[in-house]
Amino acid sequence: MLYDLIIIGAGPAGLTASIYASRYQIKHLLIGSRLGGTMVWASMIENYPGFELITGADLAQKMMAQVKKLGVEIKNTGVLEIKQKENIFELKTENDEVYEAKALIIATGTQRQKLNIPGEADYLGKGVSYCATCDAAFFKEKTVAVVGGSNAAVTSALHLADLAQKVYLIYRKRPLRADPIWQERAQKNAKVEIIYETNIMGILGDEQKVTALKLDKTYQQNEQLKVDGLFIEIGGQPGTELMKPLGVELNKEGYLKVKPDMSTNVVGIFAAGDVANAFGEFRQIVTATSEGALAANSVYRFLMGTKK
Amino acid sequence: MLYDLIIIGAGPAGLTASIYASRYQIKHLLIGSRLGGTMVWASMIENYPGFELITGADLAQKMMAQVKKLGVEIKNTGVLEIKQKENIFELKTENDEVYEAKALIIATGTQRQKLNIPGEADYLGKGVSYCATCDAAFFKEKTVAVVGGSNAAVTSALHLADLAQKVYLIYRKRPLRADPIWQERAQKNAKVEIIYETNIMGILGDEQKVTALKLDKTYQQNEQLKVDGLFIEIGGQPGTELMKPLGVELNKEGYLKVKPDMSTNVVGIFAAGDVANAFGEFRQIVTATSEGALAANSVYRFLMGTKK
Repeated sequence: MLYDLIIIGAGPAGLTASIYASRYQIKHLLIGSRLGGTMVWASMIENYPGFELITGADLAQKMMAQVKKLGVEIKNTGVLEIKQKENIFELKTENDEVYEAKALIIATGTQRQKLNIPGEADYLGKGVSYCATCDAAFFKEKTVAVVGGSNAAVTSALHLADLAQKVYLIYRKRPLRADPIWQERAQKNAKVEIIYETNIMGILGDEQKVTALKLDKTYQQNEQLKVDGLFIEIGGQPGTELMKPLGVELNKEGYLKVKPDMSTNVVGIFAAGDVANAFGEFRQIVTATSEGALAANSVYRFLMGTKK
Repeated sequence: MLYDLIIIGAGPAGLTASIYASRYQIKHLLIGSRLGGTMVWASMIENYPGFELITGADLAQKMMAQVKKLGVEIKNTGVLEIKQKENIFELKTENDEVYEAKALIIATGTQRQKLNIPGEADYLGKGVSYCATCDAAFFKEKTVAVVGGSNAAVTSALHLADLAQKVYLIYRKRPLRADPIWQERAQKNAKVEIIYETNIMGILGDEQKVTALKLDKTYQQNEQLKVDGLFIEIGGQPGTELMKPLGVELNKEGYLKVKPDMSTNVVGIFAAGDVANAFGEFRQIVTATSEGALAANSVYRFLMGTKK
């Protein structure tokens, strides 16, 4: 079956791309292995304009209903392989179906890098978080730790320090790899305590929530660090595996390199959302929806032949 | 009163900037002369992810409620003047209040473009309108015209067709530049008649109200088109007057020139939404919200780097 467009990924970027593609009357298909994308894991979203408070799952449901109302079919499956045959892309899905399209929007998002330590999965949403912007508000006057040494880790620590009583920033190396300005801010912030050259071996807690971290060396005579939460900021892994054989360029962090119109270096392939490098490290639902809309607009121009 | 940030403009860009600034705990004020911005004039929004169908006024209400819930004061007034005094911006409002801030986000959107033809000013509110959502109810069973070819023009025509007896959609070019889905709906609507490649030269009327339009060519043997009202939907002019004395650079179309992080050439001044040139001609509610969030993030980094 030949479509004008196939959108891969059903998070906010892919869903918005579909809403806009429908409005441009582009014959398209939406394929996603996790309907709603990473958003569905957010327990409380307070920063998506229009909803004071909504769960990620509810917001995903609303966006999916909107896509379906516009007559678009959502295939809940993964894509195994993409081949380019002249100007047509041929996709093979996990359930062995084959679809073809003149253009692709890649909105496959990221997988958060995990520590892969005991307790990490068990305490997700019970003290373990991968998003300080999303969850900082739950740690007012509490003690939290952030693991990582990047800009994202340090800015998360500083952001948490605005609310929390105490923030440990734990990094396996020394010095931090964040920009000097962030390092300086972290060092000057009375609430932030940096623990260098230390690894977290396990996350401990009771039945309700995180209570402490097990470290690989003693810190101030203790092998355990008492905390109410742990923010894991050790990077993300963009979902770019399918793109490599097609020759789509990545930036040095491994995200899809996009131009301002969301096109990649491969003619006919566009990208949107967390998998792309549009706004550097700033990856939000609002940026994903914006990128999805823009990618659909660019595909529309591309299909019309007005833009290479 | 010294704030860390003042956001000027209360449309989707300014409101989202405020939501994010609140989450970054930036002490800020939101000033807007038209709460909800241009969005409040939209009669039917179907492309904002999360809402299958919502009026602009309702969406604006939801976003404003969200801002207020986060504790931010919204000042419903215009800004008359901005002066820069070393690293502080001093704002004077229309109601003679003075506020100071370390950073500004300019989200002043656009003002409706006028036709600048005889009768336009005289019959404003007597048949001439710039907002179908606001004024459609006055034209029940009447004959009206909409001038323009954009999404806004076509959706206004469709909205008016729900009430009016007859709607002429007059556009100076051919085809319409609205999304194909809107073009198709307009063409299928029995009450909507599209007049292409025609300009309106004047608005005629009696002492009470509009009675006819003078066209630049005959239409069905008539030089005048009998109507009870005219809705002007020919785009916008960016609200940049306040920025010129501060030396903020504009692009050649007159929009504020922004870098990828939404900063302008003037240190401490950021911009977001329709007034900025972030995505070329693609100006949507989703892009405005994204730009507002990004601008707030950049202000957060800016304030962190300048705090003593």
